[in-house]
Amino acid sequence: MTKLIPWRSLLFIPANNQKFIEKAHTREADGYILDLEDSIPIDHKTTTRANILAAAQVVAKSGADTLVRINAGLRLAVRDLEAIVDPQICAIVIPKVSSAAHIQLIAETIGEIEQEKQMPIGYTRLIAQIEHVEAMPKLDEIAASSPRLMAMTMGTEDLSLSIGMEPTTEALIGPCQQIIMACRRANIAPMGFPASIADFSDPAKFQAAAELANKIGFAGAPCVHPMQVKILNQVFMPTEEQIQQANELIQSFQLQYEQGTGATNFANKMIDLPVVQRAENLLKRLNR
Amino acid sequence: MTKLIPWRSLLFIPANNQKFIEKAHTREADGYILDLEDSIPIDHKTTTRANILAAAQVVAKSGADTLVRINAGLRLAVRDLEAIVDPQICAIVIPKVSSAAHIQLIAETIGEIEQEKQMPIGYTRLIAQIEHVEAMPKLDEIAASSPRLMAMTMGTEDLSLSIGMEPTTEALIGPCQQIIMACRRANIAPMGFPASIADFSDPAKFQAAAELANKIGFAGAPCVHPMQVKILNQVFMPTEEQIQQANELIQSFQLQYEQGTGATNFANKMIDLPVVQRAENLLKRLNR
Amino acid sequence: MTKLIPWRSLLFIPANNQKFIEKAHTREADGYILDLEDSIPIDHKTTTRANILAAAQVVAKSGADTLVRINAGLRLAVRDLEAIVDPQICAIVIPKVSSAAHIQLIAETIGEIEQEKQMPIGYTRLIAQIEHVEAMPKLDEIAASSPRLMAMTMGTEDLSLSIGMEPTTEALIGPCQQIIMACRRANIAPMGFPASIADFSDPAKFQAAAELANKIGFAGAPCVHPMQVKILNQVFMPTEEQIQQANELIQSFQLQYEQGTGATNFANKMIDLPVVQRAENLLKRLNR
Amino acid sequence: MTKLIPWRSLLFIPANNQKFIEKAHTREADGYILDLEDSIPIDHKTTTRANILAAAQVVAKSGADTLVRINAGLRLAVRDLEAIVDPQICAIVIPKVSSAAHIQLIAETIGEIEQEKQMPIGYTRLIAQIEHVEAMPKLDEIAASSPRLMAMTMGTEDLSLSIGMEPTTEALIGPCQQIIMACRRANIAPMGFPASIADFSDPAKFQAAAELANKIGFAGAPCVHPMQVKILNQVFMPTEEQIQQANELIQSFQLQYEQGTGATNFANKMIDLPVVQRAENLLKRLNR
Amino acid sequence: MTKLIPWRSLLFIPANNQKFIEKAHTREADGYILDLEDSIPIDHKTTTRANILAAAQVVAKSGADTLVRINAGLRLAVRDLEAIVDPQICAIVIPKVSSAAHIQLIAETIGEIEQEKQMPIGYTRLIAQIEHVEAMPKLDEIAASSPRLMAMTMGTEDLSLSIGMEPTTEALIGPCQQIIMACRRANIAPMGFPASIADFSDPAKFQAAAELANKIGFAGAPCVHPMQVKILNQVFMPTEEQIQQANELIQSFQLQYEQGTGATNFANKMIDLPVVQRAENLLKRLNR
Amino acid sequence: MTKLIPWRSLLFIPANNQKFIEKAHTREADGYILDLEDSIPIDHKTTTRANILAAAQVVAKSGADTLVRINAGLRLAVRDLEAIVDPQICAIVIPKVSSAAHIQLIAETIGEIEQEKQMPIGYTRLIAQIEHVEAMPKLDEIAASSPRLMAMTMGTEDLSLSIGMEPTTEALIGPCQQIIMACRRANIAPMGFPASIADFSDPAKFQAAAELANKIGFAGAPCVHPMQVKILNQVFMPTEEQIQQANELIQSFQLQYEQGTGATNFANKMIDLPVVQRAENLLKRLNR
Repeated sequence: MTKLIPWRSLLFIPANNQKFIEKAHTREADGYILDLEDSIPIDHKTTTRANILAAAQVVAKSGADTLVRINAGLRLAVRDLEAIVDPQICAIVIPKVSSAAHIQLIAETIGEIEQEKQMPIGYTRLIAQIEHVEAMPKLDEIAASSPRLMAMTMGTEDLSLSIGMEPTTEALIGPCQQIIMACRRANIAPMGFPASIADFSDPAKFQAAAELANKIGFAGAPCVHPMQVKILNQVFMPTEEQIQQANELIQSFQLQYEQGTGATNFANKMIDLPVVQRAENLLKRLNR
Repeated sequence: MTKLIPWRSLLFIPANNQKFIEKAHTREADGYILDLEDSIPIDHKTTTRANILAAAQVVAKSGADTLVRINAGLRLAVRDLEAIVDPQICAIVIPKVSSAAHIQLIAETIGEIEQEKQMPIGYTRLIAQIEHVEAMPKLDEIAASSPRLMAMTMGTEDLSLSIGMEPTTEALIGPCQQIIMACRRANIAPMGFPASIADFSDPAKFQAAAELANKIGFAGAPCVHPMQVKILNQVFMPTEEQIQQANELIQSFQLQYEQGTGATNFANKMIDLPVVQRAENLLKRLNR
Repeated sequence: MTKLIPWRSLLFIPANNQKFIEKAHTREADGYILDLEDSIPIDHKTTTRANILAAAQVVAKSGADTLVRINAGLRLAVRDLEAIVDPQICAIVIPKVSSAAHIQLIAETIGEIEQEKQMPIGYTRLIAQIEHVEAMPKLDEIAASSPRLMAMTMGTEDLSLSIGMEPTTEALIGPCQQIIMACRRANIAPMGFPASIADFSDPAKFQAAAELANKIGFAGAPCVHPMQVKILNQVFMPTEEQIQQANELIQSFQLQYEQGTGATNFANKMIDLPVVQRAENLLKRLNR
Repeated sequence: MTKLIPWRSLLFIPANNQKFIEKAHTREADGYILDLEDSIPIDHKTTTRANILAAAQVVAKSGADTLVRINAGLRLAVRDLEAIVDPQICAIVIPKVSSAAHIQLIAETIGEIEQEKQMPIGYTRLIAQIEHVEAMPKLDEIAASSPRLMAMTMGTEDLSLSIGMEPTTEALIGPCQQIIMACRRANIAPMGFPASIADFSDPAKFQAAAELANKIGFAGAPCVHPMQVKILNQVFMPTEEQIQQANELIQSFQLQYEQGTGATNFANKMIDLPVVQRAENLLKRLNR
Repeated sequence: MTKLIPWRSLLFIPANNQKFIEKAHTREADGYILDLEDSIPIDHKTTTRANILAAAQVVAKSGADTLVRINAGLRLAVRDLEAIVDPQICAIVIPKVSSAAHIQLIAETIGEIEQEKQMPIGYTRLIAQIEHVEAMPKLDEIAASSPRLMAMTMGTEDLSLSIGMEPTTEALIGPCQQIIMACRRANIAPMGFPASIADFSDPAKFQAAAELANKIGFAGAPCVHPMQVKILNQVFMPTEEQIQQANELIQSFQLQYEQGTGATNFANKMIDLPVVQRAENLLKRLNR
Repeated sequence: MTKLIPWRSLLFIPANNQKFIEKAHTREADGYILDLEDSIPIDHKTTTRANILAAAQVVAKSGADTLVRINAGLRLAVRDLEAIVDPQICAIVIPKVSSAAHIQLIAETIGEIEQEKQMPIGYTRLIAQIEHVEAMPKLDEIAASSPRLMAMTMGTEDLSLSIGMEPTTEALIGPCQQIIMACRRANIAPMGFPASIADFSDPAKFQAAAELANKIGFAGAPCVHPMQVKILNQVFMPTEEQIQQANELIQSFQLQYEQGTGATNFANKMIDLPVVQRAENLLKRLNR
């Protein structure tokens, strides 16, 4: 399987769930996030952390990327980092991020550990999880906080709770767009979808949410269930029809452009440069 | 009747409308706002102001909270405050707020009057009414302007006018979410609904707006018609089904959590901490 | 034909398209934008620029306003300005604006040329086109950047591309509202609609987009097709029914207000000042 | 006596001090500020306010401008404004300004009163007094708050107290420069000097402070003692030597410039445009 | 010895220097900062940390307050906090603070440990040390970051290094004033002096720096040498003459004020309210 | 002669002054700025621009770096850039910068020209000249505006004029420190001195200004007279004594540090890490 950067799908796996870990390589996700945070009870943290590099080795059989979500509080986070900064782990998901400084302090700590472990400084990349209303006015500074940061994602359940709202598409679309726009300004990947991540009972509903995510500008999403992986991989992959249409549009544009007509038409729409570039981006994604 | 803080429903009553004042205690609102502003013609201001504490006494028969909306201009506002800062009035609604300093100057003036009237300094609480597009980029500073401020509400008619838009749900939902998020960051109550407050001809339409308000995170709303009170009280009160489901969800979570499974399921959804906390909040509202 | 300020419809015409230029005066747009930017291939720029004042003269037969869109890069822009700052051109559209300083540097350059050509300083007005996600957090400073600036419009295709989203109504409505609110705060006209400008195959769909634009607060829109002109002119013009209702509402309000009832009703809705003012604005638009 | 705008010297006079009022016209200040604030005990406020227009008439004998400083708290301020907005009073000094909104609320109130008194709206100008450390990060927004605002001045005693510092030149120069720069950005006059206004025992010390004020960019200053008036009038007036040097510098520059040498010398200094412009400003002040 | 809050002098003691620890109680500082950071070599950190509560007990013999400076990096800081959050330690000095979030993450961690150790939440107070030019534009947000924060101090050596300047009075006074003003706005104590803390060879020079510190508004200072303690205690304590003058000024003011003269004189200076309040503050410091 | 980066001295030469150009290589500046702006009369601009690369070749005989200052207005600037973007010109000085966007628009234009001339994109570096009070609150965004930007300098004459102040050290030191701190935060070189650049009559006075510049953190300075070059080269070069002391300090620190004493002394001052690092920086400058 080819690794896609940025990822279409990132599957969360509780880092103490041996069954899930062993089956991971069959799930076809572009990456796996071994979770040390919410899915691990407080008194399991130490053992789970001790076994995490072994778990990573199992997950890695898939050929996909292995990530770890650390805990939010500094005391657990520091010990998590000392255990997991390692060549096996390509990126770390930081939960409950509400400031640029939070990321910078974590990044500095990672740098220290990379040096001690004689890894290249900067090897370990970061994903910031936005989960509190406090973070919303600071999205731009968070997105630009560190060269390690490669994506920002929304913890829809936690964020909705802190706003006092239901995690419905109608309520989430506004906050999602703010995250997407901040990511695009900082040139990092926005990941997520405007729906509850925990609702995997209805594949059609999830499919709709994923398609909307794709349309409003997300580049992929984290998920918690294998069904979600499949849908995400398919939604964030261009269709045959899209590919053909994109190829035709580009050719049509080039032809008319060379003839000097300037404003060109395709399928009864005026085509100008941005439309052509969107088609080119689509083809690039196909060839990753 | 038990007072709910924050209020589910706050009914505006023109402070010179004797009939409305006398019937107020039958309306079952959680609070009543005696209005000195838009509903009082300019040449009725002085008499209305002179009678307001008497009116407050009548309204108080309901056992609900009594509030007053003062005028926006400083000259009327200062005289309004001198008349109404009083142990009978628990909070003052300030209209047309577009800056933190506006609230702070009013709060300072109230402090002076409380001192003169030998009331405890800080007794009188404030609600800020957002009614102009100028206020939108300053919502966070307004929400954090004073420890007296307990809620922020949207004047949908005036705000829509200043934006040049129709006060429809589609157009209001974005500005509403900005107000809700600013309130949550400042730990005050967002009150309102994404529709025209003046449209009380269609109860079903109002019910839909109130339910949407609840879902996107409002904690209650001001209103102008008794029909609206009933709907708000019911919408912002949890249903039997919600209560039962919340109880079950909490129990299920505790059981699975104690067994150390970490990621737990309920009704085919993964449950984690935020979901549980939302259920706990709902039960708290019930027991107010 | 009477010129409307602000314009209901501004029709883009490639400045080298002789056919379109000659037919312009039959299109009934409130203004025409001769485009030197995206619709002109790079090696046609010089000739097109040289002929632009002649083209303006032809377009002016319609009695409508003539505008020019210059190129974005400074080297082309400076030469464009030297050619087109002229009494015939009432306003210049600046594409790809992402900062207040961009407008100010262009405005300063225009001032120099106006002085050289002995035109009144300030004669040439500006419209800023928002086309990149970078501009979104700076809309207020852009809107207030220069006294020459009279409108801000959204380049939906380019903006969507830079956000990585599809230019659908659902995705565009949030960014549109941000632009509208920034314009209202700066007292300039927001122009646009929440849909792709290039899709002129489906008049009904365009009509719906234009009506939504009107409802959320746009004051008019640029367009690329004569069909769009007709729809924009009609949507942004008040209907007979609206006019009659506005007249009645104002009369009803005045009557009840004089009787001192304060909160007044009309067609079963409570009417207060903002509702009345919206009616008055509508009548003003009619009489332009 | 010719009125200078902006003023070199503005003399504070307690508005209840009949002796000072009667002698005012002999003091040669460019303007007089009748003070209703700090110099009037709380139980003298009402009578003093009632007599203030009569006092203004006496002061006006000097031919200089008459200003009034109102009280800071809204209750006194509103009554002050109702008494003093009048064709006799050219400007109002607002004490304890810490926000733009403070000025805007006062300006709006003045507008109402001007309308009632059938004065031209905008007649009454404003001076903002900066007296609290809270104001320091908001100087730019305060300076740009209203078209009525023509100057900003520093209340050195109060400001120093709120910072916990002594009002010495060393400590005041930094805050003074911040005020000056904010005024220059907003195109209003900075007034003040980096020393205690209350220390009028030592004319030489005051002279030094005034000269420093002039050098760092103040355009004039308020004061409390006739001795200070004389010094301010003289310091903020260019000397014969400065005038002659300025004339020579301008001529020398023009000569060398016409000869095309570009970088020109005068008295062994390289002269370029800013140096010449400073000389021209100096001559303008002379001719006011 | 009486504890002064805020402290006049805080003496740094390397936490592994047994001699200094034992002599501490003879030094007469208002507080002692046991240092775990710069004065402790990296391989002594663990042992020093293990002995710190024992050292605190020795230092406490003086009756003065005991504080600890933790390390800057998160890995050391977290272990430092786990060792030192304790009823014996009234406050923790955080070095190298450049953001509000840094303080908030530390404060949250302290809260967790206080809970585990059954201490009252909020017991442990904080002092933020500003040591990098990055912090300068964020002083206001740092000063307001946490209710635990009681003072902000400048690390003159480190800050000067990061600016590339010499730690001279001339260069430091500007940055010092920015810190003082931010502290006053947030109602916390500014501590420091505009000179190198490391230069204790010249008592007269240090005395001058301390006096300047007092005049520009610092409330006390940290120091590294017993000689500095003596000078700080004396400089930040009012003199007999100041006390007498303050008493006389207050009496004189009250007398003249009761007589209704408004603007009053004392020792040939006009006295108004701020001057009186400064005198009152001085007397309060005496009676601590 | 070795090129120093950053430069100790940059000598301005009017780009049409053949005599100065020919003597340049004897002046020993670290770099020469051929000026197209203030020192060139408007009707000499075109010829001077046409000859500038020839002039650069002459100047380059010195082995020092060649820079060009372009004009401020866009029309001249664009033509200047088209003439001077060239492998011979290592950096361009942009005058009258008051925004980040100004630099970004220029940088984009340079990129276009570099591409056309087949130079490596990014070859041409930038220096921003701060000359207007408008720029002061935006120094951080200007300093971080472009990866091409390597230094920021102050146009003391113009800046002082726009503030309305005399260009004295006392008045300039505050603004200088703001520029220095913004540069250090953005990791670019602050260049300048707190005095008038045009006053070269008094070498001792200039020497004092240069030494102060060095102490407050400037890294070098532009200048207009050969005498200034010599002084700048010497002031910004470490002395023998400084070098020896730095070496001794570093050795002493290492010795005491290895012995584990932690807080170490040198010449009766406590030495800690920042003091040592400053010494190390000094030695690095020597070895450039």
